[in-house]
Amino acid sequence: MDITQELVRYVLDAAPADIPARAQHDAKRSLINFLGCAIGGAQHETVDKALAATRPFSGPGQATILGRSEKLDIMSAALINGTSSAVLDFDATQAKKTNIHPSGPAAPVCLALAELNPVRGLDFLTAFILGVEIECRIANTVFGERNPGWHVTSVCGGFGAAAAAGRLLDLDEQQLIWAFGIAANLAGGIRENYGTMVKSFAPGTAARNGLQAALMAQQGFVSDDHALEGSKGFAVAMTGIDDLQGLTENLGKDFEISYNTYKAFACGIVTHASVDGCIRLRNEHHLEPSQIGSVSLKVSPNTLLLTGKEEPKTGLEGKFSVYHTAAIALIDGTAGEAQFTDSRVHDPNVIALRKNVHAEAVESIGKYEAYVSIQLKNGSVLNEHVTHALGSLDNPMSDDDIAGKYRELVNGVISQQQSEKIIDLCWSAESLDDAGEIARAAVKK
Amino acid sequence: MDITQELVRYVLDAAPADIPARAQHDAKRSLINFLGCAIGGAQHETVDKALAATRPFSGPGQATILGRSEKLDIMSAALINGTSSAVLDFDATQAKKTNIHPSGPAAPVCLALAELNPVRGLDFLTAFILGVEIECRIANTVFGERNPGWHVTSVCGGFGAAAAAGRLLDLDEQQLIWAFGIAANLAGGIRENYGTMVKSFAPGTAARNGLQAALMAQQGFVSDDHALEGSKGFAVAMTGIDDLQGLTENLGKDFEISYNTYKAFACGIVTHASVDGCIRLRNEHHLEPSQIGSVSLKVSPNTLLLTGKEEPKTGLEGKFSVYHTAAIALIDGTAGEAQFTDSRVHDPNVIALRKNVHAEAVESIGKYEAYVSIQLKNGSVLNEHVTHALGSLDNPMSDDDIAGKYRELVNGVISQQQSEKIIDLCWSAESLDDAGEIARAAVKK
Repeated sequence: MDITQELVRYVLDAAPADIPARAQHDAKRSLINFLGCAIGGAQHETVDKALAATRPFSGPGQATILGRSEKLDIMSAALINGTSSAVLDFDATQAKKTNIHPSGPAAPVCLALAELNPVRGLDFLTAFILGVEIECRIANTVFGERNPGWHVTSVCGGFGAAAAAGRLLDLDEQQLIWAFGIAANLAGGIRENYGTMVKSFAPGTAARNGLQAALMAQQGFVSDDHALEGSKGFAVAMTGIDDLQGLTENLGKDFEISYNTYKAFACGIVTHASVDGCIRLRNEHHLEPSQIGSVSLKVSPNTLLLTGKEEPKTGLEGKFSVYHTAAIALIDGTAGEAQFTDSRVHDPNVIALRKNVHAEAVESIGKYEAYVSIQLKNGSVLNEHVTHALGSLDNPMSDDDIAGKYRELVNGVISQQQSEKIIDLCWSAESLDDAGEIARAAVKK
Repeated sequence: MDITQELVRYVLDAAPADIPARAQHDAKRSLINFLGCAIGGAQHETVDKALAATRPFSGPGQATILGRSEKLDIMSAALINGTSSAVLDFDATQAKKTNIHPSGPAAPVCLALAELNPVRGLDFLTAFILGVEIECRIANTVFGERNPGWHVTSVCGGFGAAAAAGRLLDLDEQQLIWAFGIAANLAGGIRENYGTMVKSFAPGTAARNGLQAALMAQQGFVSDDHALEGSKGFAVAMTGIDDLQGLTENLGKDFEISYNTYKAFACGIVTHASVDGCIRLRNEHHLEPSQIGSVSLKVSPNTLLLTGKEEPKTGLEGKFSVYHTAAIALIDGTAGEAQFTDSRVHDPNVIALRKNVHAEAVESIGKYEAYVSIQLKNGSVLNEHVTHALGSLDNPMSDDDIAGKYRELVNGVISQQQSEKIIDLCWSAESLDDAGEIARAAVKK
């Protein structure tokens, strides 16, 4: 059987009952994290501008723009919701061979289609899981070893979105093969645009493109059957990799969604281990900032390279300062969006502690590792060795952690009542009669 | 100055008066050819299916779908009109280092924006010329030497569409740089999909993507300033080519649109020289099929390789049969769409002559060259050596040829009155007060 055919057949034939409880639960965790990011992110100027450029050309109000008051057609909704989910740089990351963020392309398509026509919660979750499965497999196989500049979420996301949509639209095998072929043609996105609004736009375009691919295939729009693996196809053109056996390895046995990791803190990933250590010591010893003399961090070389800014000037710079992140974690006991405003970066109490944070790079220290040592004014010293920062695959956030992160992100955008309703709907998603309820509950009133 | 900045500054600063009359005239020829292809192509099932998958999600009726009765939002119109222009495989081809078809992405954007807000004809033509300029320069520089599988029209078209839109939307320099950055992120399209409906969809998506890029940039949506030439940017990711000096060589002096060639015949390009030779002999000697004994062709090796089908079974196969194309050219004196229907391929008179057509590949014969020798039943022999087939850069179609091709393509779709109005509007495009008239005249009633 062809590779594409094997993938497509799996996507269409997998029964919800064949998906293990663990994967289903991980899908809910991903969904809650995604919704927090998208609802919270929807207030960002990136989304304002994308909406301003989309609204005048959009169709009927078929689907909710998460965390906003608008409804737009499903293609525009997929575009905007995927974008919103990425602006805070807080969405789930697959911790295998690439840094793909698979929810951004897949979830908006499931949500939009569930609003267009009622979808049972179990089918909704299954489509989401299978969409993530396809994106991540393509990412790891085609981009795991070689990547001249592609934004992996962007270029792989459309296949995941097409798979999820194909499942919900009940495409047949040939149609889903075409949807993959159309998605292959629409795939684009480069890393040169990292650090700009376009980076957030990319999962949105992947969502929109995959949805469009499925809708066109449903009408019988014909592509090549081997657009993914052919000699002038996606994989060869993108990276030159033509051995795609990995695409179907352990299909139906090992689920990609269970390799999703969730950022616990709203700052550069390489600061997370030291932030985690500071919070552990603070909580364990009930520390007050006034007790602290100085803080010594031993971190990975990359941590100092990427987040060595001693005196951040803006909230955004604060996210990439290992000094600010440690100080604010000790003061607030958390490191969410609220800790990275311009005013917190300029707060005299924060600055006072920040000046007493020292950091040293040690070659043998890994990405998710840090040594934190706090010298108290009373002379005693508190030490913590973080081997796996909270949020890494070996030290995952608990369900409560994820729900807490979600609540913090949506706070002030939707009501507490809405927020709790969405959480409840997600945790019981497999038994919903109409998964569209989730999106409809996320309207900003 | 940066490469992108230099390109962008040229696009925005070029005055219509700086564009030579030759380029302006070539733009009109391209436009007429494009409109013929799009209006004629709009009846194809490829367009039916694309429209069926687009209409339910489209916005207000801002722009005409050429050769159809619908009006859709400008983004959807750009998508569909770009698609229609390609389905007959009859649109202009740039005859430099690639086979880009530059009108398909650029023209639909100019037409759609001219309907959204009135645009003077001179500005319309200038925007179209500059859009084509940008696409072709990127194609020739980035894809001229190396191409692992990219569909050049698809991946370069968005920049041309963005340039044309940027000019008509009056973007400033920074905004057009962002539009290029967004277009770079949206660029995709692979050759594996050649021979399917997706090949036609590609210029449409390029048009839509470039238009969207310009509209987003107008709202201040920020990209990287070097998405085209950066170390993780478009050129490096696509082909690894990082010397982009050619992008700005002779900018404003040598115009890409003047390298457009127009297919005179609706069949495989490698058959054109022998078709041309058959028509020349037929017309010169007033030949009737009944006079012809046999036909001997000497053609390039590629011609036999690509179009060596002796007994085509469908109209489409007939386009790729050097035997059918020669026979039908001798019978009908032309080789348009009407010569490649299933019924013409099965016509006993055509079959009778086709069986007497012989072809031989000769290594030294070039792409646009052929020797045609006709043995008449009365014993005499007629010879023609075609060195440059009609439609090649060295033997271009006349203005009347192009208008004739256009008329044949739109015949039966729009009225003769509409058809002639459009031709008149195009030939005098530089003096129109409102270029939107062109698109509005192309509605199927």
